[in-house]
Amino acid sequence: MKRYGILDTITGPADLRGLSYDSLSVLCASLREFIVDSVSKTGGHLASNLGVVELAVALEREFDSSRDRIIYDVGHQSYVHKILTGRRDRFGTLRQYGGLSGFMRPEESDTDPCVTGHASNSVSVALGMAHARTIRNQKYHVVAVIGDGAMTGGMAYEALNSAGTSGEPLLVVLNDNNMSIAQNVGGLSRHLSRLRVSPRYLHAKARVKERLARIPGGAAVSRAISRAKARVKRFVLPTSLFEQMGFTYLGPVDGHDLKSVCELLAQAKKMKKPVLLHVMTQKGRGYAPSEQEPEKYHGVSSFDPLTGRFEAAGEMDFSTFFGKELCSFAEKDGRICAITAAMPSGTGLGPFAFRFPTRFFDVGIAEEHAAAMAAGMSAQGLLPVVAIYSTFLQRAYDQLIHDVAISGLHVVFCVDRAGIVGADGATHNGVLDVAFLRAIPGMKIFCPSNFAELRSMLSDALYHEEGPIAIRYPRGAEGAFQRDTSAEPAACVREAERPDAVLLTHGILVNEALAAARLLEERGLRTQVWKVNRIDGALKEQLGRISEQADWCVVLEDVVQSGGLGETMAQIHRGRLDLLNTGDRFLPHGSVSDIYRVCGIDAESVADYITEKRKAGGNGLG
Amino acid sequence: MKRYGILDTITGPADLRGLSYDSLSVLCASLREFIVDSVSKTGGHLASNLGVVELAVALEREFDSSRDRIIYDVGHQSYVHKILTGRRDRFGTLRQYGGLSGFMRPEESDTDPCVTGHASNSVSVALGMAHARTIRNQKYHVVAVIGDGAMTGGMAYEALNSAGTSGEPLLVVLNDNNMSIAQNVGGLSRHLSRLRVSPRYLHAKARVKERLARIPGGAAVSRAISRAKARVKRFVLPTSLFEQMGFTYLGPVDGHDLKSVCELLAQAKKMKKPVLLHVMTQKGRGYAPSEQEPEKYHGVSSFDPLTGRFEAAGEMDFSTFFGKELCSFAEKDGRICAITAAMPSGTGLGPFAFRFPTRFFDVGIAEEHAAAMAAGMSAQGLLPVVAIYSTFLQRAYDQLIHDVAISGLHVVFCVDRAGIVGADGATHNGVLDVAFLRAIPGMKIFCPSNFAELRSMLSDALYHEEGPIAIRYPRGAEGAFQRDTSAEPAACVREAERPDAVLLTHGILVNEALAAARLLEERGLRTQVWKVNRIDGALKEQLGRISEQADWCVVLEDVVQSGGLGETMAQIHRGRLDLLNTGDRFLPHGSVSDIYRVCGIDAESVADYITEKRKAGGNGLG
Repeated sequence: MKRYGILDTITGPADLRGLSYDSLSVLCASLREFIVDSVSKTGGHLASNLGVVELAVALEREFDSSRDRIIYDVGHQSYVHKILTGRRDRFGTLRQYGGLSGFMRPEESDTDPCVTGHASNSVSVALGMAHARTIRNQKYHVVAVIGDGAMTGGMAYEALNSAGTSGEPLLVVLNDNNMSIAQNVGGLSRHLSRLRVSPRYLHAKARVKERLARIPGGAAVSRAISRAKARVKRFVLPTSLFEQMGFTYLGPVDGHDLKSVCELLAQAKKMKKPVLLHVMTQKGRGYAPSEQEPEKYHGVSSFDPLTGRFEAAGEMDFSTFFGKELCSFAEKDGRICAITAAMPSGTGLGPFAFRFPTRFFDVGIAEEHAAAMAAGMSAQGLLPVVAIYSTFLQRAYDQLIHDVAISGLHVVFCVDRAGIVGADGATHNGVLDVAFLRAIPGMKIFCPSNFAELRSMLSDALYHEEGPIAIRYPRGAEGAFQRDTSAEPAACVREAERPDAVLLTHGILVNEALAAARLLEERGLRTQVWKVNRIDGALKEQLGRISEQADWCVVLEDVVQSGGLGETMAQIHRGRLDLLNTGDRFLPHGSVSDIYRVCGIDAESVADYITEKRKAGGNGLG
Repeated sequence: MKRYGILDTITGPADLRGLSYDSLSVLCASLREFIVDSVSKTGGHLASNLGVVELAVALEREFDSSRDRIIYDVGHQSYVHKILTGRRDRFGTLRQYGGLSGFMRPEESDTDPCVTGHASNSVSVALGMAHARTIRNQKYHVVAVIGDGAMTGGMAYEALNSAGTSGEPLLVVLNDNNMSIAQNVGGLSRHLSRLRVSPRYLHAKARVKERLARIPGGAAVSRAISRAKARVKRFVLPTSLFEQMGFTYLGPVDGHDLKSVCELLAQAKKMKKPVLLHVMTQKGRGYAPSEQEPEKYHGVSSFDPLTGRFEAAGEMDFSTFFGKELCSFAEKDGRICAITAAMPSGTGLGPFAFRFPTRFFDVGIAEEHAAAMAAGMSAQGLLPVVAIYSTFLQRAYDQLIHDVAISGLHVVFCVDRAGIVGADGATHNGVLDVAFLRAIPGMKIFCPSNFAELRSMLSDALYHEEGPIAIRYPRGAEGAFQRDTSAEPAACVREAERPDAVLLTHGILVNEALAAARLLEERGLRTQVWKVNRIDGALKEQLGRISEQADWCVVLEDVVQSGGLGETMAQIHRGRLDLLNTGDRFLPHGSVSDIYRVCGIDAESVADYITEKRKAGGNGLG
């Protein structure tokens, strides 16, 4: 087994306190090496973790993570914390089924204070914890570590606004690498770059004072200026947005200068009020490939640690295909705009951004704003396409309803990462979208199963529909089923005479359904397979016809138990009905096929379920 | 008919441009009188409209609201705009069925650019419109009028962050009355009060300059200071948060000084970039009772315009009862905390705030933060109770899932204004909550029908349940049904031997169901009535037993078509099933009973439906 020097001697955070700063620096180098080696095998978040090594070591050293509550916003930069708090041995299981999560999970360790995964919530959760500590009269520190990208999210601002005036002792560490996943955007980003150079102001002030000391009557002027400055300070000059919110602002400090970071943390710890410590870090620090291309090394699959080269060239995936197709439409139609919330690359919109810069809008981690802005665009004659991951679209739920749907505005929501995402786990699965979208009056939901259907549905959504439309598609590549059946709201994709059961599904799961039908055929059971292409009122008539095909209908979905297609069918199909879905639970992380098996929605589980039920008889719902 | 002087001569905004400032001031007085007279009869929003009379007149004068897009955030302060844009004659129909909406509605007038009702979205929508104008190469102005209360919402910040750097010409008018509905809260509020006194800074600067001019060598010093100031300005000294976000900041200006407001609007109109105009107004201005108690006169029922006295003393309502009960629990249990998002009074938490100030948290219009903060509190041993209106809980959907439910944290959400709210209309109805809550794994939903049940369920939620729980209850008073049936997940509230149909419902609609059953009895039909007390897994077994009572089951709900109790029952009841609900549409405004009739969920409509269907036969869903 490879040795990692001083890291091998660390058994827990307490060991850090006995080390000199020099030794800690050596430890940081070892940690970087360990992370690169380990993530190169398992995949995971790389650049964000390499950027915070010193900060994370300093936090474990200055605070007691078993008692104090240190929340890493998103938590994709919590690897050093995990390694130092007893999870190094299991680090090779990262993001695998049964292994360590890529985010914070309290069930993994008492040092993980809450579940993390979505951005911008850490200050809110931390403030709640700080209030609890005060009300229960306990003694511990609460720290939120939040990136400048996550700071663009509205809820971070809501929390700063609330925390700043609460007077509640609380430390917010702003991990400022001038990026979210991609380049950071917006006014806040500009403000932060100003703060980074703010020491210049202090120099300017010193020069004026020097000059005044040298001239007659200068002292009186100097006093007048001091008074004026005091007024300025009191009424106008908060050195930062954070001070305006009521925080004491410390920094900016070089986040790779371990001694300075430790000292400032120690200072912040003593202050009995809300403090913001501004730490500047370099994303991808200490590993040449990720220093050069931090965005590329944000979230990675396995790679060669020596060269930084990724092992598999990526197959075409739904996101990339979507981005490519949208460009074709946009070429012919100047009304088409694309909006993303800090995911230009993840949503496949990179080429669009490059080719149509004036019609491309990355609003930062701001899904609420993205959806409402699209409403404004649509109201004034544009054709906005908003690409957001299913799980993050939850952030814009009110805007879908209030700003888009009530007015019946024509906005196309491309709901990426719908269904099971796999390794990112419960916080990232897109398993609620059908339920929450279906409830919205007038909302149409299209469910392509492959690229050809995605193309047709995008065209329909842009040119043959009105009002709000969602197109949901999964992460990754298409499966074996590549026919375009989108001309009808539902299509029979596998015929069977006098079927024993009808298997009804949508999206990528059509592949599992077809495979299940083949397995069942080998076992002597005849299964007709239908896929629906949309889940809305247009489907009703066809569901009636599907219902007539057999007395037994099994509905297979990659969404939660309540609110899916199964419940529409339940109102129509009066025969025997079984709903197979992800259930009334949150799912563990693992590969997509692992999670399909956990839920019983993979081909084999579906075939087994039907075989057994067939033997047992009775309504599977009972 | 009462005469309103100069107001009677105004046929549209164009007429304003011919008037002197003196005449406009007279017009403003007439407008206030008209609004007080009219709202005293119809009820509606009073104080917010009285506060913006000059601002609204100035906006209509300086802009062309038929071409330019003027968005009033929330829109509850758009009455002057409505009166001046051809809706004065219909103003007596305000908030009534078939009459004018209390918010902006494009179908009412081309001068209403979008549907409004929820706070903090106006800058996002306005930015979308500004982008559309630029991309389509058109010429019009876009203005968002937003209160300082709405500025506490995260999405306003997301939009400022995005707009500030867009360079897109856009005017944000900050209507700063130092209140939201109640006293404004948080760091932003403090920042604004600083800005309000910022002219002092300019005076201080002038004094220093004067002094320097009088001493030898002063000129050189003055230049040095100027250079230093420039540096300060460039790097550190943005005079406001808005300048930090990239806006040009104008103001603050007295919002009742019509001439100054007009001049600043004219100036802002010429600037080809994002501008924020800070206008200070007095909520309730010009009507003594509302000047003295602006919160009380925010939203009003009918009152005597001479005395300001309200006509009916309010009956006990669900919100007040909840607030009272929570106090009793909190008295005995120091872990109980109450959280509201800018609705201390509306949610009935006034007494709690008064009695337990250290355990009461008004976070501003910040539902996302409210829910995530509650998660932090619960994780550290408190018992947080979050009271939010159903329609505004949509804003916290992701936090319910990500911060609360995935961790299974024990947080009680008191979902006020569930179901039909009536006069506020589509933007305020709480008709999606059952669907979006039911989808969340592990979420429990309690549905009290009366105060006694609310008390029992609150007790259960606090002490006999774990994990996330929602208690949904309507606006207003309880009905005739006052039995506490909460001991069981579902209760038979009207027996019938060999019933022709089972009527299944929840919440306040039990009163309509019972009344319908009585009507049906007169028509010779036997109806058994069941109410469910919770909508979650615990109900399943009992639904099976209810299903056995009759072949025909009618489910009656005050929620949208998809995702309600009806869909749970559809999976269980294999006989004939009819779902009566608010449908797949957004509803008009009017009284609650009007809207019940529109939806066909009032007693008479339900009885008629069942009578007719009984004659016709067949499945009502087909």
